[in-house]
Amino acid sequence: MTVLTRRSMLTGAATATAATTLAPFALNAPTSASAPVAGKQAPGFYRYKVGEYEITIVNDGVWLRSLDPLPTPNIPIADLQKVLADSFLPTTAVPYPFNLTIINTGSKLIAIDVGTGGRFSPTTAGTYLDNLTAAGVDPSKVDAVVISHFHPDHINGIWTKDDKAVFPNAEIMVPEPEWAFWMDDAKATSAPEGLKPNFANCKRVFGPLASKVTRYQPGKEVAPGITSFAAYGHTPGHTAYTVTSGSAALLMIVDSVANPAVFARNPDWQHASDVDRNMGIETRKRMLDRAATDKSLIQAMHFPFPGAGHIVKDGNGYRFVPVSWTHLL
Amino acid sequence: MTVLTRRSMLTGAATATAATTLAPFALNAPTSASAPVAGKQAPGFYRYKVGEYEITIVNDGVWLRSLDPLPTPNIPIADLQKVLADSFLPTTAVPYPFNLTIINTGSKLIAIDVGTGGRFSPTTAGTYLDNLTAAGVDPSKVDAVVISHFHPDHINGIWTKDDKAVFPNAEIMVPEPEWAFWMDDAKATSAPEGLKPNFANCKRVFGPLASKVTRYQPGKEVAPGITSFAAYGHTPGHTAYTVTSGSAALLMIVDSVANPAVFARNPDWQHASDVDRNMGIETRKRMLDRAATDKSLIQAMHFPFPGAGHIVKDGNGYRFVPVSWTHLL
Repeated sequence: MTVLTRRSMLTGAATATAATTLAPFALNAPTSASAPVAGKQAPGFYRYKVGEYEITIVNDGVWLRSLDPLPTPNIPIADLQKVLADSFLPTTAVPYPFNLTIINTGSKLIAIDVGTGGRFSPTTAGTYLDNLTAAGVDPSKVDAVVISHFHPDHINGIWTKDDKAVFPNAEIMVPEPEWAFWMDDAKATSAPEGLKPNFANCKRVFGPLASKVTRYQPGKEVAPGITSFAAYGHTPGHTAYTVTSGSAALLMIVDSVANPAVFARNPDWQHASDVDRNMGIETRKRMLDRAATDKSLIQAMHFPFPGAGHIVKDGNGYRFVPVSWTHLL
Repeated sequence: MTVLTRRSMLTGAATATAATTLAPFALNAPTSASAPVAGKQAPGFYRYKVGEYEITIVNDGVWLRSLDPLPTPNIPIADLQKVLADSFLPTTAVPYPFNLTIINTGSKLIAIDVGTGGRFSPTTAGTYLDNLTAAGVDPSKVDAVVISHFHPDHINGIWTKDDKAVFPNAEIMVPEPEWAFWMDDAKATSAPEGLKPNFANCKRVFGPLASKVTRYQPGKEVAPGITSFAAYGHTPGHTAYTVTSGSAALLMIVDSVANPAVFARNPDWQHASDVDRNMGIETRKRMLDRAATDKSLIQAMHFPFPGAGHIVKDGNGYRFVPVSWTHLL
């Protein structure tokens, strides 16, 4: 990291080429027609290093989740709208950004979760493949796809919209307890109505891969330096990760905390997306306490893009401090 | 803003093409050689709308400002390092990101300040022109360059490194009190040593333009909907802006607050870059109070890129709440 004083820079500036060589401005020339508005955001990817590992966060858009039914089932809508307003968010929906992770260890290229495949909130999500391309990541070079849990915004991107394999050379690794729950026909039949569509979607995505996926137990090191751990509650086998390289570490909290303006600030609020809502709260609190206590760099799927930063205790809850964007890697 | 429920999306997913048409994975194929690390950040620009106006924030890199001499002259270095650590920043330098603003009003293309021209902290700054290109902004289409004050990271980008005009068709608009101070030979001669390099740099940049620039009084509407106002202290004519379109508004605080982890949190701390340090503190407090009271969307030059967000009162100081990145414009 180069540190310069203002003095040294100004001296350089002041000794630059003499002013007499400057080209003239054509101030009285007719101005050109007004430039068209661009109407297009910058590519949605962000890079940072964890030790020797290069992390690329790839945005897949955002889900603007309706307040009906409430994403916070045990909380009055007015309380939810207040915390949204306090964070200067619209009060008509809760944004769930989608931040997928690519890790280049130097010897392996790993994708942690793979986005919506364009089959979820199609008007506001589905930018993953375009952003992968913008980031210069070739999906055919991915060695392993590691799935954290079986919600559609994490697994659908295994397939293109016309059902081609996006990562044709990758081993697909899934948590054993996720497989045991969502791929069980008896559980699908007896599931509450609200879960049935997700059972069907898991069948669609993983049915053709049944004999091919690698099932791992949470706790396993899924790739060099990438170790999984159980973070159950959001789903029965929801799995999080630590990434370590040299003395650097990253805590990937996945979906244990959704939008921090709502759920880090209020760790006690139930989350409608959690299959076991009370266990989801316990896991969330444990993860937030761990991140704050250890001052961990964290990466979160549904935090504001790129979803990297730190957690600090703030009153009865926690606050997210995003990393400062930098072009310096 | 389209709001969808999880149910409607899952239903769509579950009825997609039957699994039997899925292409196979080649799981046992030899994995390809490991992909090379990219080593390159995403382009540094960010777009948002203010009413009908399209704002493009263009990053020019960052100045990693040494702690010797102290950026906070009346504060012990340990106190400065503590607030840096509290915000998970390195404690060896204060980062000053450079966020320049382009405004497309629909009829005019306006640049507010133009960056370092590659002549300031050359190893960590000078990315403005590359990012303008990435953002699809053609400098020859810019109708007006509006300068807030005469520090090198705001004015040097008027010229390329080989002294060509970057904005050949633009009117160059500068605050009259900045011109009166920095272009005065008597003031340059009698200036404290610490300011002399900046006097020389102003002469270099504006000398060839003396008969061509438009000098405006702070308070003037410099372009439709873009109104300047005095924010003196950082420099004698430091000028800030409001941008309004329809019922939407943006408060451009420019350099009245530098890195918020230091100077929003501690509005009373002197800033070594302020020509009048006490006036700088008064202006800073007034700006922070205005932003927090009005819940204004703000844009700041030296906040973490893209430097757009809101200000909230927090204890004895203020805290910055960055906008949530979105690809939806």
